[in-house]
Amino acid sequence: MQNIETLPTLMPGQLLARGVCRHLKAHDFVTLEEFTPERGKRLDVMALGPKGEFWVIECKSSRVDFTSDAKWEGYLEWGDRYFWAVDEAFPTELLPEGTGLIIADSYDAEILRMGPETKLAGARRKAVLQKFARHAAARLHRLRDPEQVF
Amino acid sequence: MQNIETLPTLMPGQLLARGVCRHLKAHDFVTLEEFTPERGKRLDVMALGPKGEFWVIECKSSRVDFTSDAKWEGYLEWGDRYFWAVDEAFPTELLPEGTGLIIADSYDAEILRMGPETKLAGARRKAVLQKFARHAAARLHRLRDPEQVF
Repeated sequence: MQNIETLPTLMPGQLLARGVCRHLKAHDFVTLEEFTPERGKRLDVMALGPKGEFWVIECKSSRVDFTSDAKWEGYLEWGDRYFWAVDEAFPTELLPEGTGLIIADSYDAEILRMGPETKLAGARRKAVLQKFARHAAARLHRLRDPEQVF
Repeated sequence: MQNIETLPTLMPGQLLARGVCRHLKAHDFVTLEEFTPERGKRLDVMALGPKGEFWVIECKSSRVDFTSDAKWEGYLEWGDRYFWAVDEAFPTELLPEGTGLIIADSYDAEILRMGPETKLAGARRKAVLQKFARHAAARLHRLRDPEQVF
C-alpha cells in the first residue's frame, strides 16, 4: 500500500486527512480535502454521506497545530456533525467537549466518538451541496484534462 | 496543448466530450463525463452551472453513432436543457427539433443552438445534485489516492 514516492510530499495534517478519507469511504461517505465553503474558511475534510449528511473533520497533527487554530468554532456551522482527527499520540484531553473524535494515521482511521448532531438548515445545506459538487467536479476536470488552460 | 500520448486512448465521442467540457468551463459550468443518474442510463456529459442548472450533452461522432442510439429521449428528463455535441462533418439535419446543438472537436466547442428549457422538478434536482456531488468526489478520491483499496 505504501507509496514512498508520494508520502513525503504530504504535510502531517494531510496524511491524517488521507487516512480519514479512506476510513469514511468504508462508511459510504465521499470526501473533499481542503474544501472552502466560503472565503477565509478552509475545512480539512468535508464528507458527504449517503443520505446527504455533511461531516466536517479538522485534522490536527500536534498540540501546537491545535492550539494555534483560532478558527475552528466557525467550522461547526458547515456540517451536521463535527470531528477532530488526531493521531494516537495527541493529548485528546485538550479537545473541547461536544465534538467528535477520530483517531487516524496515514492509512486508516477509526471513529472513537460521534460529534453531536447540529443539522444544517435547508437553504444552507442546498448551497453547501452545490458548492461541494462544483468544487469536486472542477478538481476532477483539472486532473482528467491537465492540458487545458485554466 | 496536444498530448499525443493520451489522445489515441480516447474514443471519438470522448474526444468530443473533452472539447465540450473545456468550452462549458468558459461558461462557468463544471462537468462530469459518463454520469449515471440511474441504472442503465449513462450521460456523456452532465454539466452543472453556477446557478445550479443541469445541462445534459450527448456526444455523437458519426451518423451511425446517432442512429443506433435508442435511449436519448430518456435523457431529456435529467437536465434543465439538452444538447447534442457533434463535429463539423456531422449531418445536423438528422437531429430532432427542440434540442440544443454544440459543434465540438477535441480542443474546444461552440454552442450553436440552446436547448429549450425543461426545468427539473425540485425533488429530482436535489437527488441529481447529490448524486453528481458523490460521483465527482468519489472519482476525485480515486485519482488523488490511487493506492487505497476499492
